[in-house]
Amino acid sequence: MRTLVPRPPVPGERTAVVLLSGGLDSGTCLALVSRWGWRVHALSFDYGQRHRVELAFARRLARRYGVDSHRVLRVPALSQLGGSALTDRRIAVPKRALGKKAIPVTYVPARNTLFLSLALAAAEVTGATEIVLGANALDYSGYPDCRPEFLRAFQRVARLGTKAGIEGSPLAIRAPLLRLSKAQIVGLAFALGLDPAWTTSCYDPGPGGKACERCDACLLRAKGVAEATAGNR
Amino acid sequence: MRTLVPRPPVPGERTAVVLLSGGLDSGTCLALVSRWGWRVHALSFDYGQRHRVELAFARRLARRYGVDSHRVLRVPALSQLGGSALTDRRIAVPKRALGKKAIPVTYVPARNTLFLSLALAAAEVTGATEIVLGANALDYSGYPDCRPEFLRAFQRVARLGTKAGIEGSPLAIRAPLLRLSKAQIVGLAFALGLDPAWTTSCYDPGPGGKACERCDACLLRAKGVAEATAGNR
Repeated sequence: MRTLVPRPPVPGERTAVVLLSGGLDSGTCLALVSRWGWRVHALSFDYGQRHRVELAFARRLARRYGVDSHRVLRVPALSQLGGSALTDRRIAVPKRALGKKAIPVTYVPARNTLFLSLALAAAEVTGATEIVLGANALDYSGYPDCRPEFLRAFQRVARLGTKAGIEGSPLAIRAPLLRLSKAQIVGLAFALGLDPAWTTSCYDPGPGGKACERCDACLLRAKGVAEATAGNR
Repeated sequence: MRTLVPRPPVPGERTAVVLLSGGLDSGTCLALVSRWGWRVHALSFDYGQRHRVELAFARRLARRYGVDSHRVLRVPALSQLGGSALTDRRIAVPKRALGKKAIPVTYVPARNTLFLSLALAAAEVTGATEIVLGANALDYSGYPDCRPEFLRAFQRVARLGTKAGIEGSPLAIRAPLLRLSKAQIVGLAFALGLDPAWTTSCYDPGPGGKACERCDACLLRAKGVAEATAGNR
């Protein structure tokens, strides 16, 4: 499988806030935006997530790609609210459940809306004109806030609810991986020189951050890597 | 001035998440929703605001109105980002500046988007179908995220970005004070038996929470109270 690196959606130098969880998708976004030559303010979130080890991966990625700044924003509110296996230790992370229809218990209520609103705030403070996130609508876990129509609705919020939008330079929400399969994302990561081992995906890591290999995120990643590295290169 | 108490936008029993800052507008919303007989989950935010004393007012209001729950969510992220006189002590709160055209430095980047996204999360966790906030588009400080078109855009985000929305019971965003003048809000507070002294508005309170009487919020409130209590009752 041969992967083309997407060209920048707009020409010229840009400054972007990149949502960087430390996972494969956001890491690939960071590598892509760096390839485009954009200035990057990386943003990670410490929200009491079970897989907090991802923040160490995010920090290393940010250093590796020489971002202009990397902030780890603290949002205890999400674990105060609970309601998700990712923020509430009393709810177990499902194993081998991929492909079931319902929205899984790893769904964190309104998480992407929350992270995007903090990205808006960061863009206003840093003067960034782009917000880049690794949302993906194909091989995903069935979360409502990863869908294209959600991102379009949020784009409108960004235009209407910010100083930048009112003053005539609305922020653009970019999700360059939105229509790629997981295998294509892995292919893109390789094409950009990003080693997937620099990222982590597991929702339920063991001691030392070791991936469980059985949660949705691990299964999706393994499937993507297997397909991307299968014969037809 | 005689004030009519608005009727509920939908009939029957409802459960609402009410954004409760401890200010006059949100306090009036709480009193109104209580009058409607709705169940209330009140939500306040501790975001490093200069006028943190408002949280004590919020707690007393929540107790007074016998809410089902009151959560004070911690969002250090906003003060980590800074960029506003309300979250950054190095930026002074302007005094006697009301009526100037520009968006003032008390604007907290993307604050309402952020608070609404946490309200979405809280609604998902509590099963509430309504989110009520005291946004006001008339006598306000020029913040972009208080405008009707912003709230409509966020309504769409709420429909598309949540489990409730996907499962066919979208959350409604209600801003019952949106088109009232500050004087009308004060009149409504009185009509509901809410003493404005139970609330606080000042952005820059002195020791003991004493209002400065000179910031935008103090001036708007004083103007509203003066007009509401002037001759023509």
